[in-house]
Amino acid sequence: MSSFRVDLKKVVDDSYDIEIGYNLADKLIEDIKAGLVGKIKKFAVVTDSNVKDLYAENICKLLKDSGYTANLITIEAGEKSKTRQTKEFVEDTMLALEYRRDCCIIAVGGGVVTDLAGFVAGTYGRGIPFINYATTLLAAADASVGGKTAVDTPLATNLIGLFNQPEKVYLDIATWKTLPEEQISSGLAETIKHGCLADKEFFDYLTANMDKIFAVDEEACMHIAEKNCNVKYQVVMKDEKESGLREVLNLGHTVGRAIETVSDYKLLHGQAVAIGLVAEVMMAKKLGYCSDDDVKAVVSLLKSAKLPTEIPDYIDREVLVKKLYTDKKVKNGKLRFVLQKGIGDIMVFENEQYAKEIPEELAREIIMEM
Amino acid sequence: MSSFRVDLKKVVDDSYDIEIGYNLADKLIEDIKAGLVGKIKKFAVVTDSNVKDLYAENICKLLKDSGYTANLITIEAGEKSKTRQTKEFVEDTMLALEYRRDCCIIAVGGGVVTDLAGFVAGTYGRGIPFINYATTLLAAADASVGGKTAVDTPLATNLIGLFNQPEKVYLDIATWKTLPEEQISSGLAETIKHGCLADKEFFDYLTANMDKIFAVDEEACMHIAEKNCNVKYQVVMKDEKESGLREVLNLGHTVGRAIETVSDYKLLHGQAVAIGLVAEVMMAKKLGYCSDDDVKAVVSLLKSAKLPTEIPDYIDREVLVKKLYTDKKVKNGKLRFVLQKGIGDIMVFENEQYAKEIPEELAREIIMEM
Repeated sequence: MSSFRVDLKKVVDDSYDIEIGYNLADKLIEDIKAGLVGKIKKFAVVTDSNVKDLYAENICKLLKDSGYTANLITIEAGEKSKTRQTKEFVEDTMLALEYRRDCCIIAVGGGVVTDLAGFVAGTYGRGIPFINYATTLLAAADASVGGKTAVDTPLATNLIGLFNQPEKVYLDIATWKTLPEEQISSGLAETIKHGCLADKEFFDYLTANMDKIFAVDEEACMHIAEKNCNVKYQVVMKDEKESGLREVLNLGHTVGRAIETVSDYKLLHGQAVAIGLVAEVMMAKKLGYCSDDDVKAVVSLLKSAKLPTEIPDYIDREVLVKKLYTDKKVKNGKLRFVLQKGIGDIMVFENEQYAKEIPEELAREIIMEM
Repeated sequence: MSSFRVDLKKVVDDSYDIEIGYNLADKLIEDIKAGLVGKIKKFAVVTDSNVKDLYAENICKLLKDSGYTANLITIEAGEKSKTRQTKEFVEDTMLALEYRRDCCIIAVGGGVVTDLAGFVAGTYGRGIPFINYATTLLAAADASVGGKTAVDTPLATNLIGLFNQPEKVYLDIATWKTLPEEQISSGLAETIKHGCLADKEFFDYLTANMDKIFAVDEEACMHIAEKNCNVKYQVVMKDEKESGLREVLNLGHTVGRAIETVSDYKLLHGQAVAIGLVAEVMMAKKLGYCSDDDVKAVVSLLKSAKLPTEIPDYIDREVLVKKLYTDKKVKNGKLRFVLQKGIGDIMVFENEQYAKEIPEELAREIIMEM
């Protein structure tokens, strides 16, 4: 018997910039010309059927006008496209177009497009660079920081994927003007989550400025885009691999993601998260970490963001309880929840644990109440 | 417009050990008990239909006897299993068995199993640990160092995958006794490649000891396992992301992989690489980097390893030439080849390039000759 050591210790730098502003397509092209992705000349612009005509075609055209090769790859809009099959479709399209490793993916769209395209980029040729051009508030709030990419399967949400960091992220706030209202609401769910878990002042700002946000007021939207990046970054920077602290971003998501799946994606991600936030603040109240006023403040802010705060009647509660066990935080077969400590803070448990084991009975009790 | 910096510079340590020896299953269990993968108690043992009864069931049993949860997941033996569909099958089996992120994959088998299982591990729950227990000479030569995992698609070999390092690799030489002779030969192709590109002494050792290797002589096999690790490690250590030097490991593979695909996997990987090595040493000769004697020495050693050295008649030469363009080294639509400099060395071109642009005509000429 002999032993051979493969030494692979090294410094990696996955740092990147997030550009926040109005109409950033020209800035994107400028950055590429200035060497954002080195000498790469071939770009797969991945988008969805809603965003294609609005923004992606323009970016594709600007690339071609600048002498680059660019192809538009369009997937069907909606969470149902976040599958291994859609990933294969994008890969096969790129292969048929003879994309090799000397290319870059530009994801133009919301969280579904950026999650999927980032995952494709991570495994195409064992990794090619990608750029996110986010066109929704949800993507700005949720998908722009953290490097989480994934697809869903019939048995689990977001369980097949990768940590993969983009070369750069563009949050084009001008695109929010073309969002349907329910998409603004959906993005606000993650935004409100950030207030709940880390920033009472931001929570209060949202409570006071909801009208401006729905009117896509430039100043208000820049502010919430920046705040969202900031809260998420503070968490992610400290824990890139989601080993501990990063679990706090799962606030509302244990119940939320389960509802999203059980609803068969009739609920948008943010709508499901809103209901999850209510369930989980109620749980925190039952455990004595939140007051009744905290619950009321969360419910009221979610309502002002035009988000649901109750579990729809068509959801089978028992199926929902069972679905909670597909959550990634489950350990040794036990449910674990992140729990608010009032507004703007989070409970930290023994041994620096940010999630607490909760008996199924307590989870069921709350779900039955809602 | 405002800009937000996400700072993600850090030190990562993906180092691991390769254990080389006879009958290493007990050692594997011992290592797991000693904390090789921390506190993980749940193991998915991924194997193929050939290796299942021989070794994988035993490992599964040993795990269970030690109080761990272990499930055997068996894929069909052969290169045709290295697909996205098989990856989905393994994932779905694990999901149905309620594997979350607190688990580990143990790949028991040859390169197909370790490549596939390593890829599954890389994207399951955005990354779980995996261990390779290699049961073939080819896996010992090729798949144990480098962290390359991948699947094939109808349009390209190994283009969808990841760089993902195992927690540990076991090269169990006792398993080579149960290998069909053509599998020993197939593994020898990569072994001979290592001699060709980096180690003339090793090339000569192989020339002198082929009989011992086919008899699975303990000393000879330990030696070639160690040498294979060593050559590959020297290259990979210096270039983990295959940006330059690592391309030298592609010697014989530009033509080899294309033949493998065009043969519809009737040829084993190593058989295809053997033909590729001949094609590429002939190319090096035409370009003046090798002598006629070098070509003869390569052909003769491959023949003594019972490997093919000519393109089979059923291969359409024109289809083969076209298929060369699916190679990952292709840049700006141009074919690029790694080229031997005599025996035991490799050509280095301008700007530290290890692959040279070759006109399609030259590639075609050689393919037509063979």
